[in-house]
Amino acid sequence: MSSAKTQPARGMRDFLPADVRKREYVIGVIKQVYERYGFEPLETPAVENIETLMGKYGEEGNQLIFKILKRGEHEKTGEADLALRYDLTVPLARVVAQYQNELPKFFKRYQIQPVWRADRPARGRFREFYQCDVDVLGSKSMVVEAELIAAASDALVALGFNDFVIRINHRQVLTGILDQAGVERAKHDDALIALDKLEKVGSRGVDNELEARGINYGARQRLLDFFAVKSVERAMHFLPDERVVKEIEAFNEVMLGRLVEFIGAHEIGASGVDDLRQVLQFAKASGADRRIKLDPTLARGLAYYTGVIIEINVNDLPGSLGGGGRYDNLVGMFLGKDVPACGFSLGLERIIVVMSERNMFPADVVSAPADVMVTIWNEDSVGESIALASELRSKGLRVDLYPEADKLAKQFKYASSRGIPFVVIVGDDERALDQVAIKNMQSGEQRLVDRAGLGTALSDLGLRVRTGELRRNKGMGKDDR
Amino acid sequence: MSSAKTQPARGMRDFLPADVRKREYVIGVIKQVYERYGFEPLETPAVENIETLMGKYGEEGNQLIFKILKRGEHEKTGEADLALRYDLTVPLARVVAQYQNELPKFFKRYQIQPVWRADRPARGRFREFYQCDVDVLGSKSMVVEAELIAAASDALVALGFNDFVIRINHRQVLTGILDQAGVERAKHDDALIALDKLEKVGSRGVDNELEARGINYGARQRLLDFFAVKSVERAMHFLPDERVVKEIEAFNEVMLGRLVEFIGAHEIGASGVDDLRQVLQFAKASGADRRIKLDPTLARGLAYYTGVIIEINVNDLPGSLGGGGRYDNLVGMFLGKDVPACGFSLGLERIIVVMSERNMFPADVVSAPADVMVTIWNEDSVGESIALASELRSKGLRVDLYPEADKLAKQFKYASSRGIPFVVIVGDDERALDQVAIKNMQSGEQRLVDRAGLGTALSDLGLRVRTGELRRNKGMGKDDR
Repeated sequence: MSSAKTQPARGMRDFLPADVRKREYVIGVIKQVYERYGFEPLETPAVENIETLMGKYGEEGNQLIFKILKRGEHEKTGEADLALRYDLTVPLARVVAQYQNELPKFFKRYQIQPVWRADRPARGRFREFYQCDVDVLGSKSMVVEAELIAAASDALVALGFNDFVIRINHRQVLTGILDQAGVERAKHDDALIALDKLEKVGSRGVDNELEARGINYGARQRLLDFFAVKSVERAMHFLPDERVVKEIEAFNEVMLGRLVEFIGAHEIGASGVDDLRQVLQFAKASGADRRIKLDPTLARGLAYYTGVIIEINVNDLPGSLGGGGRYDNLVGMFLGKDVPACGFSLGLERIIVVMSERNMFPADVVSAPADVMVTIWNEDSVGESIALASELRSKGLRVDLYPEADKLAKQFKYASSRGIPFVVIVGDDERALDQVAIKNMQSGEQRLVDRAGLGTALSDLGLRVRTGELRRNKGMGKDDR
Repeated sequence: MSSAKTQPARGMRDFLPADVRKREYVIGVIKQVYERYGFEPLETPAVENIETLMGKYGEEGNQLIFKILKRGEHEKTGEADLALRYDLTVPLARVVAQYQNELPKFFKRYQIQPVWRADRPARGRFREFYQCDVDVLGSKSMVVEAELIAAASDALVALGFNDFVIRINHRQVLTGILDQAGVERAKHDDALIALDKLEKVGSRGVDNELEARGINYGARQRLLDFFAVKSVERAMHFLPDERVVKEIEAFNEVMLGRLVEFIGAHEIGASGVDDLRQVLQFAKASGADRRIKLDPTLARGLAYYTGVIIEINVNDLPGSLGGGGRYDNLVGMFLGKDVPACGFSLGLERIIVVMSERNMFPADVVSAPADVMVTIWNEDSVGESIALASELRSKGLRVDLYPEADKLAKQFKYASSRGIPFVVIVGDDERALDQVAIKNMQSGEQRLVDRAGLGTALSDLGLRVRTGELRRNKGMGKDDR
């Protein structure tokens, strides 16, 4: 009986057990990789004071924030004093300002929590969704960018992705290009919005939009000359075999050269190009350079980025698997002085969509809810069954206990429906002989074993009597196996 | 600079890394135990349609629900259409009604998520806090109560608790007692509110409150005769040694006898006493009976419980570590037909408070954020350091990389401040010899090893080159070690 009364709120989702296990697997792998890079976990409240969030995400963002009514006598004023977390970056900036004396000089944190946006729900777009953020605060060094790129790349590889491309660009490089092309500063945002559509609408389309947005003919020609050459394929997805790696390396070299040439002595722009060169050089040391492609058309919105910007894409997903960049001024909005910062955010829902479509989840992620089910023979043997279940659990097995004395056929049917591989039966005959029967639910085979040897017998049947460690395997990446 | 601008919202908390690790440890142990009982994870949205929540928690509950303003043009109406999750039981009832055809006949789920209540914040009382719920739907058998009690008890034992008492009672038994004492039905709630204070205010105080609430003299006398005898110590905290176990067993026997005597032929009450007797008998099979004490004064609010009610206490905490009971009618509010249900909820925040005060966390729960830190000697050796960090990470070590070329003393100081036990240095001399230096940050000792043998050397120094499995140890209970 699905009715409006029992559905989750619009754009939000219930996660039944199989869904939760998939989500926990992905989160576990990402956490494990981020911990290897020395990142530490942070959690902030779902609810923030409304002033903390308002004005941080632009006009559109303000409208998409879920606002919470004042309580008690103030409820009828219709005013809001609290709001739901909209991203993980603004709360991080608040935390850094609030606890600056307790935090290390370089604060490396990851944060994997839901955020809420009152967007119109659509396929793959939800009003409650998780962000997996990783950020470094306190250093302007490009080592930070290189580490973030390597960590995000490692996380995706650990999840089984092999065909993603990491596109990088730089906000100052964009400024340099636009200045040198002769676009006045006031029109930079307009020009970037138009250029961002190059892949979708082509040179002609971009030219029309640039014109409509009031960019003069000369600037348009210089921009399109720079961007719309054949070598600037915007998306380049690939399996990183040696030939492609060489191609991409050569491509990046050519692109750096073209940037140097076009930007020339433009100071801000040239310093951005130097940053990009360094990121490429540092990424070589970790091997992440094999997937990085310089892409001068990458803009990634304009909110708070100030330096390198990054986006990771795969072919079969519109939009990105994740993105990030440097934002050296955001913490200053809370702290009154700037703290250099750079971060990257993986999109959990998109990763799960692609992994599900490609069947990338290991078979045991959505395993049976129990290793074995203990039946209840009759009202008199309830205690016996509870004791048996209790004993097997103390050995580390996951044991379901059928909750009622019932027909055995019904109990078997229930075990089958839950996919539980083995069922243990203690009937009157077995009890008299101090034995129990084990039924293999797949083969239907049933055998008797001594009551005392049940744990060993189950383990021989392929059910390792697991220790806690083994049970926690599930969050591991494939590369760990 | 702590200012109102950077503080979390009132009654809510930021969790810095050491806090998150403690919380994740406790959640990990609880999950592991619940999985051993065949429970499966469920997650529901933080936000529910407001009708889903209103009217389910009584008048006081309605006022404590955080309500979310309508969006867009409707924002100015000041109306709310959504609300924040207030507990995990009502969403569970909604889920069972919504997905009844997809869920197994007996739905055993655990759910560990935050809830929000606009309570006045106080010590240990927050506006955002986690509940750890475990529920079984679909069976009226007392095996369910016994399993829930055993699971919650196992979880607390796995966390290191040994001195808790599990108090049980039954709503029908309360009805029977009050009926037989001559309290009219309309006054039952009043009488229970008064009786609930027996431990705090004594017989005289309860008598006064009963009188004030309009309970007649005869009924008051009969109630106080029944409750206010010496053998009914309300709280009985103990280490379950054999002597105490025998005492508690004898106590429960006596109490069952007194209930039978007092309730007599009162049908509903007598059936409740039978349930309690069964729970005690079944709990004996799992060993959980050693901690169970029958307590006829236990009332646990009156919202939706219909049968057995349960509460777990320790001496050094006012309030409970957790509680629960049977609620056979709640799902019917969504589904239109009743589904038997019973659940238990552990209070994460209270567990953490007691564990912190008692120093119950294993030492490695709040470990260093990394096993080793790699330094950066100078601008020319950045790549070398990145490559080294990358190599150690691929071996499963958690490696922090100092992000900048800097004075070595500063880099050591930073490693110290983060508690990282080992630091690796690749200076010019070392590079020339293809060696690296390892500094033990505790002893100050520094030694040279071959570059190729670094992984082995670190492992010899007591830093196991951990596999993914070992890293995931942290969630384990002590009983697994």
